[in-house]
Amino acid sequence: MELLFLGTGAGMPAKQRNVSSLALMLLQERNAVWLFDCGEATQHQILHTSLKPGKIEKIFISHLHGDHIYGLPGLIGSRSFQGGTTELTIYGPKGIRDFIEVSLSVSQTRLRYPLTIIEIEEGCIFEDDQFLVETALLDHGIPSFGFRITERDRPGTLDSGRLKAKGIPPGPIYKKLKMGESVQLDHGETVSGLDFLGPDIKGRIITILGDTRPCANALQLAEKADVLVHEATFAAGNEEMAVEYFHSTTTQAANIAKEAGVQELILNHISSRYLKADWDQLVHEARNIFPNTQLSNDFSQMTIAPHKS
Amino acid sequence: MELLFLGTGAGMPAKQRNVSSLALMLLQERNAVWLFDCGEATQHQILHTSLKPGKIEKIFISHLHGDHIYGLPGLIGSRSFQGGTTELTIYGPKGIRDFIEVSLSVSQTRLRYPLTIIEIEEGCIFEDDQFLVETALLDHGIPSFGFRITERDRPGTLDSGRLKAKGIPPGPIYKKLKMGESVQLDHGETVSGLDFLGPDIKGRIITILGDTRPCANALQLAEKADVLVHEATFAAGNEEMAVEYFHSTTTQAANIAKEAGVQELILNHISSRYLKADWDQLVHEARNIFPNTQLSNDFSQMTIAPHKS
Ligand SMILES: [Zn+2]
Ligand SMILES: [Zn+2]
Repeated sequence: MELLFLGTGAGMPAKQRNVSSLALMLLQERNAVWLFDCGEATQHQILHTSLKPGKIEKIFISHLHGDHIYGLPGLIGSRSFQGGTTELTIYGPKGIRDFIEVSLSVSQTRLRYPLTIIEIEEGCIFEDDQFLVETALLDHGIPSFGFRITERDRPGTLDSGRLKAKGIPPGPIYKKLKMGESVQLDHGETVSGLDFLGPDIKGRIITILGDTRPCANALQLAEKADVLVHEATFAAGNEEMAVEYFHSTTTQAANIAKEAGVQELILNHISSRYLKADWDQLVHEARNIFPNTQLSNDFSQMTIAPHKS
Repeated sequence: MELLFLGTGAGMPAKQRNVSSLALMLLQERNAVWLFDCGEATQHQILHTSLKPGKIEKIFISHLHGDHIYGLPGLIGSRSFQGGTTELTIYGPKGIRDFIEVSLSVSQTRLRYPLTIIEIEEGCIFEDDQFLVETALLDHGIPSFGFRITERDRPGTLDSGRLKAKGIPPGPIYKKLKMGESVQLDHGETVSGLDFLGPDIKGRIITILGDTRPCANALQLAEKADVLVHEATFAAGNEEMAVEYFHSTTTQAANIAKEAGVQELILNHISSRYLKADWDQLVHEARNIFPNTQLSNDFSQMTIAPHKS
């Protein structure tokens, strides 16, 4: 599981940072990629990575500002043109369907794969046996969602040493025991996998927020997350401007990370007013409050390691 | 007057060529830029040039395929965000209004300048005292327009030597004579500017075609043009494929240029199947038929010099 930042700027494209898009790479977990937001030229950014558009399984749109959605029609079309045939599901606020449908229909784009568009509300918007995705509304003037992606816990490690000592040799039976099932042995005794399993291995939690002022729902979505991706459009000291434009500062993001008790904070959605020479200062402002902070850059890639227990 | 090629590829963005956009720089002529087509990331390409989005006065859209329009919403929004206040007029096939209006409305983009959208038919779509823009439908499966931009002729050079010899000294009177007007001199004699003017200086003609198979309207729009920008999606020998996909080959473009009697041909809209090493071959195929041929590249700039007479 990795985060691959495709666009980390705010509002308009700039040479150093493109507009918003972030890929959650789930290649080991499900041979798929989930995209969060899709600003203009996201498909261009992808050309400079190893990401295959055909692997994109889901796209989550936080809000409908142009810098978060104008890359959708092109990416959707190119994914088909390049031979993508598997289903693509797009989740976003009410209005996303109109934008996509009108864009594809005026351009007479015909897709070779099934496209599903889901206009979301707060709550659980997706779950299967691996992941759960929950959303809540943030504070951005227009509906802007945050996403909390929870990986389900996995059964702990099977204690094969103790099983062998009990005279149960490795075989298909181990698979059942590993799932916590009970199994009857040849000589009649029944053993339960639960007695030989270590504690559940906790799934990872990734919180990716759309544009927002600091708010209670941001805090709740980030609760004890392994990684929190929070916008930091402005530097510390610009809190008035942040309020006016419905954004956050570096220190506001750090305070959310600290209060929510996350493991790591990634500052994202950085205004182009800050030049390369300013970036160190931005991350230091946050680290004064929450030490384990990184600043995202276009094409930065961050691994989220599985838990050991 | 210059042509600045912003995107010269076909169908999908590639590292070497972005999707379609071409700027006709009319800075000396009217302190303005006219854009022809606006594929995704046109505003990103502009970041690498000296072109100021606020100077873009008109955008002409040849047809509604995604690689020619998906950059419009972003460019329109950024032009406002960057402080553009002068009117912008967009000309394009029926459907362009829906695409722009839905894109701007779902993203709640409010513009600080007047935006006019004109859905065009064949014929004269714009004229003022400097320029005339005429369109005709090409052959591309969906409505695809070609544009013929005609600069109006200007009055010839005033023969000041002969005027002085006649005892008429330079002064405000020369301005009237230059316009071909008649003027009464102090001693009563009337002189006509027409008697002292050289022949009209011919305006330039630039023909910019949307995607098309070779066709009669392409020929007509290109008649005696100074510059013809013609698509050449495929290499010579791929005429069957060109027919199937409603495109042209290098030699088909060259034949149109030759028959139309243009001064210069620029091959544009080059498929990404052709790599840098193939480009020389493409231009040579056309030059065998029409010697004064160039191949466009992203960011290539070509001057169209004024006529001397
Ligand atoms: Zn926003
Ligand atoms: Zn086309």
